[in-house]
Amino acid sequence: METYNNLDDYNRVLEDRSALPEGFVAGCVPLTFFPEEKELVTPLPMNLSAILLKEPTESFAAVFTRNSFPGFPVLDGKEKLKNNTISGVIINNKISNVRCPGGMESVQELTSRAAETFSLEKNSLFSSSTGIIGWKLPVANMVEALPSLKESLQEKTLLEVSRGIMTTDAFAKIRSVEVGEGRITGICKGAGMIEPNMATMLVYILTDLSIERDKLREIFSRVINRSFNRISVDSDQSTSDTAMIFSSCIAPSVEESLFEKELEMLCRDLAQDIVRNGEGTGHVLDVTVKGLASEDEALIIAKGVINAPLVKTAVFGNDPNVGRLIQAAGDAAGNNGIEIDPLKTEISLGGDIVFQKGYFELSQEKEESLSNYLKSCALTPELKGYPEHNKNVEIVIDFNSGSESVQVFGSDLSYEYVKENADYRS
Amino acid sequence: METYNNLDDYNRVLEDRSALPEGFVAGCVPLTFFPEEKELVTPLPMNLSAILLKEPTESFAAVFTRNSFPGFPVLDGKEKLKNNTISGVIINNKISNVRCPGGMESVQELTSRAAETFSLEKNSLFSSSTGIIGWKLPVANMVEALPSLKESLQEKTLLEVSRGIMTTDAFAKIRSVEVGEGRITGICKGAGMIEPNMATMLVYILTDLSIERDKLREIFSRVINRSFNRISVDSDQSTSDTAMIFSSCIAPSVEESLFEKELEMLCRDLAQDIVRNGEGTGHVLDVTVKGLASEDEALIIAKGVINAPLVKTAVFGNDPNVGRLIQAAGDAAGNNGIEIDPLKTEISLGGDIVFQKGYFELSQEKEESLSNYLKSCALTPELKGYPEHNKNVEIVIDFNSGSESVQVFGSDLSYEYVKENADYRS
Repeated sequence: METYNNLDDYNRVLEDRSALPEGFVAGCVPLTFFPEEKELVTPLPMNLSAILLKEPTESFAAVFTRNSFPGFPVLDGKEKLKNNTISGVIINNKISNVRCPGGMESVQELTSRAAETFSLEKNSLFSSSTGIIGWKLPVANMVEALPSLKESLQEKTLLEVSRGIMTTDAFAKIRSVEVGEGRITGICKGAGMIEPNMATMLVYILTDLSIERDKLREIFSRVINRSFNRISVDSDQSTSDTAMIFSSCIAPSVEESLFEKELEMLCRDLAQDIVRNGEGTGHVLDVTVKGLASEDEALIIAKGVINAPLVKTAVFGNDPNVGRLIQAAGDAAGNNGIEIDPLKTEISLGGDIVFQKGYFELSQEKEESLSNYLKSCALTPELKGYPEHNKNVEIVIDFNSGSESVQVFGSDLSYEYVKENADYRS
Repeated sequence: METYNNLDDYNRVLEDRSALPEGFVAGCVPLTFFPEEKELVTPLPMNLSAILLKEPTESFAAVFTRNSFPGFPVLDGKEKLKNNTISGVIINNKISNVRCPGGMESVQELTSRAAETFSLEKNSLFSSSTGIIGWKLPVANMVEALPSLKESLQEKTLLEVSRGIMTTDAFAKIRSVEVGEGRITGICKGAGMIEPNMATMLVYILTDLSIERDKLREIFSRVINRSFNRISVDSDQSTSDTAMIFSSCIAPSVEESLFEKELEMLCRDLAQDIVRNGEGTGHVLDVTVKGLASEDEALIIAKGVINAPLVKTAVFGNDPNVGRLIQAAGDAAGNNGIEIDPLKTEISLGGDIVFQKGYFELSQEKEESLSNYLKSCALTPELKGYPEHNKNVEIVIDFNSGSESVQVFGSDLSYEYVKENADYRS
């Protein structure tokens, strides 16, 4: 169990993780602006970040939200996936550029002016925007900041960018691993609107390991599905979710299976970092549903449990109200035509059996020990700027009726979550 | 807009609504017990209620939860639906009798001992239990209370029963209407775990209007689907949801269409009473989704919006963050393969257009007026024992791509909701 006793500890860890692979530069600058939509006395702060390849690459992939009202950077990015080569991505926080008048023009203006500043081909940059939905991007202010953004580019670390893309995130999220003669480094942001397919979650993975585009896209899609698409903070899928991977192809390739394994572990770690940083998260829930005929069925029930407000509030209150586990699992099963047999069902909480062969196994003693277990997994919902520990509330639901299983991660539901989301824009 | 300035006002209204139709008696008694599962110093209180027909009737119907872990009263009730006649129902609050060892035996013991006490046929009573999941019914204490329950039976009012079946409900919910030469009176309970198909919601409708069983069952199923199955407090479907209707068939019958219309209005009113009484509800949301090819599609999107935590928290905070409306609607559409065209979509909040022809229509002025609108719809989440008013936050999403529409009711997400559900059993 990794713990951080203070912010300095965590920052040292982040520095160790932040090394850029060969062939990349990155930078970030702050700017301020007045939104058109709201009269303000003081301007709002925004960060503009860039991750660039020293040479254009053919080896890149991206996965976007399935939301039917996608942001303009997502619409633009889907087109650019068809490019022969790409040179990187420019990212802003604070405003998400979703369905505001002139939004597509903003993306085109910003990415082409940025390409010009960085002496790149006109159409060679992706963009990502995260933040308030519906407001316009302050393109003029952003274009004005491009020369300083160019000045800030360096080839050492992703640390500034990982901090620059944060919105309600309490801490930066970076993971890095050496593989063969190369490296994979990933950053992400996201704390609310977190649910697969995907969340206001931006994910950027960089590597110098050589890999062909088709193979990379195939692997990346599988990996995202088994990592970021298996977490849920609040069941809301954002309009702007984006995950991208770029390879500079400077280092020799490694076995594809090794690459996929390392990439998946890195993405799962980043995904759990997001849950642990969920808005107001007091506990991380780790729910495994097993013993069903298909992975799809297991996923429906696991998601049903991890998103059930009554499960989430009980865990928040350190109340081992295991009745709510069968309520949520039975709701998901019954309403999706998934046949389960209560008499074969076994449920454990923190390794302790609470339901077996169709009936609860509860006692005063067990209730107390389960409540203590929940307390031992608790995080302080008021975030300290670093993850306190990596301990999860482990729930296993085994239907003993098949061989498929699925594991998902989610968060409880706290006062802090409500507070943060009721006051987000005020 | 019906308002109640104090508890006395509301109680007078309830008295007016509580008249029993001809041919019924009702009663309620308190009792206390020590649960097996928890060591307590003072006993817990429970109410035992009965609604009985003076003569057994063939004209009855019931709709039960689709949850895959149904409570034992639900399993027993499904069997009794096949009976030729039935004589009523016995109801307890505090413990829901779900998946605890010996649960079915408890139902059988309780209903047969009650039938004996009331001089009815052994198999002629339904039962309902609501409350904590997983604990055993204190059958001995309940049987001991049966003679006093019999003593309490009277033919005037449902008021005591409507109060006796409450759990976390803040106020009793009764509606009554005179139709032709007869009457329909309904009561319900439910405040949490509220989501269609159905919620820890118990609903009992009594009438003296003559109607054949088959016709009654057909109508009741349609009406429940368009009323109680269109509300959602927290998207959780309970293991014990039950709605029952009984007719004494003493008054002459009325036109079936009139009966259905009056029954539907009564059930919609009761359903909204439940939402207004939602645990910690600060606003009632009234979401209409229209302009789609099918009612099913409209319902999926309407439910997506009404259950989205980010929409719910924004409304709670009186924050007209309309971006979250397209986020939630787009999430539901995109993930369920429902084709919608952003450029045809129109969204209004409180009658004010906020999104039209693919783009937001927002301004500082509009934000202020929308925020004032939300404030004007606010309820005090700390419930006063009566509904303060009947005003809803009206959201209309029109996709202009078809003729089907659907209207659903839900609640916002407040601190109080979290508090109540984190502390429910403590």
